[in-house]
Amino acid sequence: MPKISHKGEMMPSSPIRKLVPYSDAAKQRGIKVYHLNIGQPDIETPQDAIKKLQHTNIKVLEYSHSAGILSFRKKLEEYYRRFNIEVTADQIIVTCGGSEAILFAFNACLDSDDEVIIPEPFYTNYNGFALTTGIKVKPIVSTIDTGFALPSIDEFEKVITPKTKAIMICNPNNPTGYLYSKEELETLAKIVKKYDLFLFSDEVYREFAYDGAKVYSVMQLKDIEQNVVLLDSVSKRYSACGARIGMFITKNKDVYNTAMKFAQARLSPPSFGQLFSEEAIDTPQSYFDAVLEEYIDRRNIVIEAINQMPGCFCPVPKGAFYAVARLPIDDSDRFCQWLLEDFNYNGETVMLAAATGFYSEKAKGKKQVRISYCLNTNDMKAAMKCLEEALKVYPYSTK
Amino acid sequence: MPKISHKGEMMPSSPIRKLVPYSDAAKQRGIKVYHLNIGQPDIETPQDAIKKLQHTNIKVLEYSHSAGILSFRKKLEEYYRRFNIEVTADQIIVTCGGSEAILFAFNACLDSDDEVIIPEPFYTNYNGFALTTGIKVKPIVSTIDTGFALPSIDEFEKVITPKTKAIMICNPNNPTGYLYSKEELETLAKIVKKYDLFLFSDEVYREFAYDGAKVYSVMQLKDIEQNVVLLDSVSKRYSACGARIGMFITKNKDVYNTAMKFAQARLSPPSFGQLFSEEAIDTPQSYFDAVLEEYIDRRNIVIEAINQMPGCFCPVPKGAFYAVARLPIDDSDRFCQWLLEDFNYNGETVMLAAATGFYSEKAKGKKQVRISYCLNTNDMKAAMKCLEEALKVYPYSTK
Repeated sequence: MPKISHKGEMMPSSPIRKLVPYSDAAKQRGIKVYHLNIGQPDIETPQDAIKKLQHTNIKVLEYSHSAGILSFRKKLEEYYRRFNIEVTADQIIVTCGGSEAILFAFNACLDSDDEVIIPEPFYTNYNGFALTTGIKVKPIVSTIDTGFALPSIDEFEKVITPKTKAIMICNPNNPTGYLYSKEELETLAKIVKKYDLFLFSDEVYREFAYDGAKVYSVMQLKDIEQNVVLLDSVSKRYSACGARIGMFITKNKDVYNTAMKFAQARLSPPSFGQLFSEEAIDTPQSYFDAVLEEYIDRRNIVIEAINQMPGCFCPVPKGAFYAVARLPIDDSDRFCQWLLEDFNYNGETVMLAAATGFYSEKAKGKKQVRISYCLNTNDMKAAMKCLEEALKVYPYSTK
Repeated sequence: MPKISHKGEMMPSSPIRKLVPYSDAAKQRGIKVYHLNIGQPDIETPQDAIKKLQHTNIKVLEYSHSAGILSFRKKLEEYYRRFNIEVTADQIIVTCGGSEAILFAFNACLDSDDEVIIPEPFYTNYNGFALTTGIKVKPIVSTIDTGFALPSIDEFEKVITPKTKAIMICNPNNPTGYLYSKEELETLAKIVKKYDLFLFSDEVYREFAYDGAKVYSVMQLKDIEQNVVLLDSVSKRYSACGARIGMFITKNKDVYNTAMKFAQARLSPPSFGQLFSEEAIDTPQSYFDAVLEEYIDRRNIVIEAINQMPGCFCPVPKGAFYAVARLPIDDSDRFCQWLLEDFNYNGETVMLAAATGFYSEKAKGKKQVRISYCLNTNDMKAAMKCLEEALKVYPYSTK
């Protein structure tokens, strides 16, 4: 029997999925599980866009252009202009989810053993895509005590080597919810310019900025237009994770043309998802206003609850719909499993993501969990109550 | 300005797309172009399946399971049983088109510099996926004189090295239209078994077998169940290239679990496409009967026309909707460009794919073109007339 690849052996399993069997078992024992572990919003997808797709007359469901349907890319120009991002249709490649946009960026810009610097904690799957493409992730730590602010220039310079080809950020951030300021991004631009690096920015949570804050995009940075690749997706924006529509955007013609070779090899992005996404761009602002209001309420429930639990700390995230909290626990993996296996409060428990999966070294995330505030406010309150009661009785508390 | 990756420089541009500007220019000069260059069928997509998707009530367009929607995978069991292929839902990973299934196979089974043997001419994008994943393609020639039959065991053994991890076939074949016999596949199974290799089989043209022939699947081969990975797609089957729904199927648990890690990293396949594809499995046999009849007519027009042109030869393909023809020309790339740039017959011309793009060495394909018989019979006849007239006046004829 032939053996799987070494690459396949090394490929990390999803740290979130590995808890799923315990969650299923808890449900089978009749325990209600509040899922704060994943980024699947419960928000309704804009129904007008769904309906328009459903009324489209489709005789032959053809391949689209490898870069995506032109009318959709044109419409995206209009979308980005609302955020003061000036891009043209020929700078956009529509991808199969944000995931494929990341793969295109890694493949077009980095070779095997080239290095990309990513502030950690970071989105787990960046590791998977790095492994797939043979490149190396060099993490630098952003700490919970600063609310996960951008590490200093010094910290970046410490890890830059001749192999460093890029810096990658996620803004607003998954898993921390941190929103980089214009000043932080300008600092980043200086490093990028000085060392002639690529800057990849995953901005899929652009719509989720709170307390009057606005997302400043890397596409707005001066002097580094040729270095920047914007990675985007409609998944969170329109609560349309299943559409699998993302975007790879750059003003650098060489990078664009190179990414197009990878895009052509896979022929085209999904047509139904593109038809939906083109219509979704007309979703009225009132939809986003309501969603934002709802998420702020949810976030506030989480922050207020956790920060009054003894020994706990959770910085206030300004964006996305995640928060990373520090808890008085020995090991977040053990704690998350225990919540599902051994704990319940009035027949209910909560499923969290251990932060170990978001760090290069598990030790860094042992006292932290990521909370995705994707449930309605009543459920969020009940979930926080579960967490509070759990911490009172967790046998491996470090309080 | 940072430089693109070496991998990106090496990545082949699509040989078919590079003619597109010439085709556009021809159209701008008022010349009608018959597109026999691509595998985009003009056949109507089953409207019942489209309508069912369009009547589905979708409140939240969620991520599906990373392996695909369970009810769809269950329904696929039923689909495969019609072809005497026994697979279960937990042996199937739904992918974003057949393309992603190929990537999963390469990533899960082969490491950098590992080798996969592929009979050539072969589907161009296999090269792109090999480059993306760092593996090496070792071609062995199947010749037009044998109608592109499977090369002999000797030929395989000549190129097997300690680095050889897999053999890959496409059956029925793109670009040749060749349909492997049961006996040929059993020969292949012996090699696979003897050298303990993986066998990847791209069977996306399963529905397109002519003259009473049936596709014998690698999943039906005895004794090598643990070696086989079936790569599949709904694109051609239902004329639904834009759905971007493919399948990665294996009975080898290690390979399945490893491919699942790559599947989880990209979260999920497209939901709309899955909803459509699940419904499409109920497409009545009458749909396929009509399609087959139409394709046989088209194929016969091509074969009869070409084989009576002086100095031309085209074996009779038993499957898919492609044929590779040998023409009395100096260089198929030059000829295909000349057809678009310099030739017209009563204001019409034809766009073909130079076979150079389907061989590891351009020289092998210089006298061959691939013809995709995706147009209706009247257009096919007109296109063949164009080709006939073109060969009479082509300045670099080798007749």
